[in-house]
Amino acid sequence: MKLDPITVVEVGPRDGLQYESVFFPTQDKIALINSLSQTGLKRIEVTSFVHPKVIPHLKDAMEVLRGMDKAPGVIYSALVPNLKGCQRALETPVDELALFVSASQTHNQKNVGMSIEDSLSGFADIAREALTAGKSLRGYVITAFGCPYEGAIALARVEQITEAYAELGVREVSLGDTTGMANPRRVSEVFEQLGREHRGIPLAAHFHNSRGLGLANAYAAYQTGCRVFDSSVGGLGGCPTAVGAMGNIPTEDLVNLMEEMGVSTGLDFTKLMESVQLVQRVLGGELASYTCKQGRPNWGAVQPKI
Amino acid sequence: MKLDPITVVEVGPRDGLQYESVFFPTQDKIALINSLSQTGLKRIEVTSFVHPKVIPHLKDAMEVLRGMDKAPGVIYSALVPNLKGCQRALETPVDELALFVSASQTHNQKNVGMSIEDSLSGFADIAREALTAGKSLRGYVITAFGCPYEGAIALARVEQITEAYAELGVREVSLGDTTGMANPRRVSEVFEQLGREHRGIPLAAHFHNSRGLGLANAYAAYQTGCRVFDSSVGGLGGCPTAVGAMGNIPTEDLVNLMEEMGVSTGLDFTKLMESVQLVQRVLGGELASYTCKQGRPNWGAVQPKI
Repeated sequence: MKLDPITVVEVGPRDGLQYESVFFPTQDKIALINSLSQTGLKRIEVTSFVHPKVIPHLKDAMEVLRGMDKAPGVIYSALVPNLKGCQRALETPVDELALFVSASQTHNQKNVGMSIEDSLSGFADIAREALTAGKSLRGYVITAFGCPYEGAIALARVEQITEAYAELGVREVSLGDTTGMANPRRVSEVFEQLGREHRGIPLAAHFHNSRGLGLANAYAAYQTGCRVFDSSVGGLGGCPTAVGAMGNIPTEDLVNLMEEMGVSTGLDFTKLMESVQLVQRVLGGELASYTCKQGRPNWGAVQPKI
Repeated sequence: MKLDPITVVEVGPRDGLQYESVFFPTQDKIALINSLSQTGLKRIEVTSFVHPKVIPHLKDAMEVLRGMDKAPGVIYSALVPNLKGCQRALETPVDELALFVSASQTHNQKNVGMSIEDSLSGFADIAREALTAGKSLRGYVITAFGCPYEGAIALARVEQITEAYAELGVREVSLGDTTGMANPRRVSEVFEQLGREHRGIPLAAHFHNSRGLGLANAYAAYQTGCRVFDSSVGGLGGCPTAVGAMGNIPTEDLVNLMEEMGVSTGLDFTKLMESVQLVQRVLGGELASYTCKQGRPNWGAVQPKI
């Protein structure tokens, strides 16, 4: 049976590095992004324009975007929290801007100090400037599968935000399990209800491995139609020896999962290991990834069949 | 929707401790088993009678079985490799003996120095003595989802071994992904083909988390009918900071996965954390488990619904 391929959106340089315990030097960030650009990835979120006081590890957003090489066919994106961040990003060769809002009022208030409605209103100016400048837009719905303050998140809220994003002109909406509360059954419900696309906007899945369920959730999302997955090289952001393994699902573990099932990712696992090794050299210690230690299974010449 | 409950078979004291880098003191093994007996578990594999030269960490099998408290309603099992091991086990208050054979000829040869057929022939005497002594029997099919030497494993081989076990009088067969080569698609194929029971023998799933897919595989197995799962408290046997995370799926992460989906496990997560803490105190370092760090998600009063 021929299975649909997936698209992997690498978010390690942004969502991973922002949570690491040490500052990843600017030249190493650039080297990592350049290395990732050679793995077959077509989408890389490289940095964030959130204020350096909030995310000091990404204070070099401008230098990174200006210093890296842009590989043909790869879309490089940056997270922007507000119009000022957008305008700074537009001074760089970025291809895409990513917006974010929580599906939980309480979480959005704690995260950015305003209501969901005010976040969405604020996106209008950003979207206009970005689209005018020829950039594409991605929208995150964070805490989409559950919120540590509010608990359950009504799917209607996720739908409303997706629709607001659609009106703003985003090309894709990523549903984030920001604090690792999702489970495969809930993930299946969400994707069965919303569909692979909602109101014409493709939906991506963004899972964190806080409770070890990221890959199970990715499998459930694939089964129920999702074809775009966010992940983080080396499982960046989730050191297994730290209390609170909060990282995204590791890109190499996602690639192994999908390729083992016969789902093409377009990524070259061996080249991806070069990026992982670069991360390992800079961070030291162990990464929150399994296949970087074990490699992929050796099936010899024969793939299993019934 | 009411979902079928599952049975958890705790294998940490045997399959976990045999692979840890240090010897877990006998009194701590006994304390761990006694602690696990209070969590709601109904099945615990407590040790192995494999020769101490091969598995030195479990050389205290007799002392453990004689020293532990047997809780009412809990079935305590021990792995036995041969008739001598069986006879030693029968001198203890063990309830169940577990047999094992590889689905791969090469793996069985390397593991126990004989062919699959010779392993199965050798089980006849063990089964007779055990059943005569009033013990129940469990059979493992190891490398059932793939072998590091032979690659793919024909499902017919797994079926044949299961049938041989059935003739020996085993009450359950556990399909082991011994080196972490399974993926959810293959797991689904296997359980769809074999069924929840094969020839009247219930099938259990025994996943190792070598490539981070253990919980995804457990989800796939549940979806396709499996209702008995082996797991290891604290993810014993798979230290995340060691090259080669080979442990079983952590019991607490399995319990979290299932309970989050509305699948009852009968286990008390809080009590399970006491067992985890005991493991942690003895081993130090970090365990290969996520929920022992993160706990379960906090949903407040409301469970998510569409």
